[in-house]
Amino acid sequence: MKLNKLIKEKKSYLCVGLDPDPSKITSGITIFDFCVNIIEKTLPYTVAYKINTAFFESMGWRGWKLMSNIVDYLKTKNVFIIADAKRGDIENTSMYYAKAFFEELDCDAVTISPYMGYDSIKPFLQYENKTTIILSLTSNEGAGDFQLNEMSNGNFLFEDVIKCSQNWDKKGDIMYVVGATRSEHLDYIRKIAPNDFLLVPGVGAQGGTLKEVSEKLLTDDCGLLVNMSRSIMYSENPGKEAKKIQKEMEDYLLYL
Amino acid sequence: MKLNKLIKEKKSYLCVGLDPDPSKITSGITIFDFCVNIIEKTLPYTVAYKINTAFFESMGWRGWKLMSNIVDYLKTKNVFIIADAKRGDIENTSMYYAKAFFEELDCDAVTISPYMGYDSIKPFLQYENKTTIILSLTSNEGAGDFQLNEMSNGNFLFEDVIKCSQNWDKKGDIMYVVGATRSEHLDYIRKIAPNDFLLVPGVGAQGGTLKEVSEKLLTDDCGLLVNMSRSIMYSENPGKEAKKIQKEMEDYLLYL
Repeated sequence: MKLNKLIKEKKSYLCVGLDPDPSKITSGITIFDFCVNIIEKTLPYTVAYKINTAFFESMGWRGWKLMSNIVDYLKTKNVFIIADAKRGDIENTSMYYAKAFFEELDCDAVTISPYMGYDSIKPFLQYENKTTIILSLTSNEGAGDFQLNEMSNGNFLFEDVIKCSQNWDKKGDIMYVVGATRSEHLDYIRKIAPNDFLLVPGVGAQGGTLKEVSEKLLTDDCGLLVNMSRSIMYSENPGKEAKKIQKEMEDYLLYL
Repeated sequence: MKLNKLIKEKKSYLCVGLDPDPSKITSGITIFDFCVNIIEKTLPYTVAYKINTAFFESMGWRGWKLMSNIVDYLKTKNVFIIADAKRGDIENTSMYYAKAFFEELDCDAVTISPYMGYDSIKPFLQYENKTTIILSLTSNEGAGDFQLNEMSNGNFLFEDVIKCSQNWDKKGDIMYVVGATRSEHLDYIRKIAPNDFLLVPGVGAQGGTLKEVSEKLLTDDCGLLVNMSRSIMYSENPGKEAKKIQKEMEDYLLYL
């Protein structure tokens, strides 16, 4: 995967989330320029950028055009591009979502909700060199409503999602979303998904620590992407913030 | 709800799905004109239109602009407009999805995936006069992967979703997606969601029948929307097809 090479080159597994909130952006600068500035400042320390579709869709079709322009800009850089879209529908419809994110926007990866099961995810898995990122145990409080329900087979729902998807036919790669806030489950998740990349939000403001996540989830091949959104986007110095995190990551990677 | 009035006026609970597939549309007609033609032909028999965002997103930002134009056209008619988007994310992000579909596009309803729990759905429920349509038991084969898993409390997952969401605080309305193909569960679903509207896909090509769905799910207040997409959009005569279904619906409504 392109991502492994980037991680080795940059000695980083930092993913920067782009969730541009117009109300938090100083007037006089366009959202495009705001995002480009963050990308330029963080690029030496960052292997992946995660674009949150909600923020762009809240601006209507002009927001989609802006998102598309930002993806085009990212494609001029050597980075892994994630559309954080959390889609998923019946197979015939998911084919069109896969087309939207893997062909039309041409991102490297897209996030998917597993509620509708295998056939809703299958169209994404058919793309070679693309990554399907499946929600398993998310960082929000509501993860406790269903994902942490115990099934009659003794598994949690999120565990059924991981175990079941391990057997799915695929041409591309699978990754899982795992919240850093779920520290009591991290060791076990790494055990049941030993070879897959994990995309981990929730470090920082939400309470997870880079130390714990790194110690519990890094594999011999890294296998980890830690996402930071607001704490980098709205910091006074995004480059300095990203550099600080990359330095800490470099230390953890030394032990691999 | 606006929908109840429309159902009484048109003696119909038909929802027409707009899933425009460019490869199935005769050349020489724009997708906008194709959709407008279907809307005009089916309007006397139809109370709601469901726009499938995937088909538009597969055309990039131009697709979103087209979707927006179709919603604007629908707003000149007296119909209930559903964005079939199956969104859902952490609370702060779902706020932006709610803004996208309830403010920017200004639809009456949007479909939501419940995998991330209450806080991921809460922002949608805060809108008065808007309807949040939660996936419960879908019509596709993959519904068997997780939704029909038995929990340790003896419930199916889809049942937990319905029962749990019955207690959520809301300012708007809740509706549930229930596949017509799941005939063995329909009676029970109506029992645990006695007062909510159900949006039912899967009648026709997928094997469910209007008769069974109507007999099992109609309430004194109707409480039912039956969606037909491909069987109307790509029929030789969409108006005739919609009229045939409306006539059958009128008969079922007589008994209310």
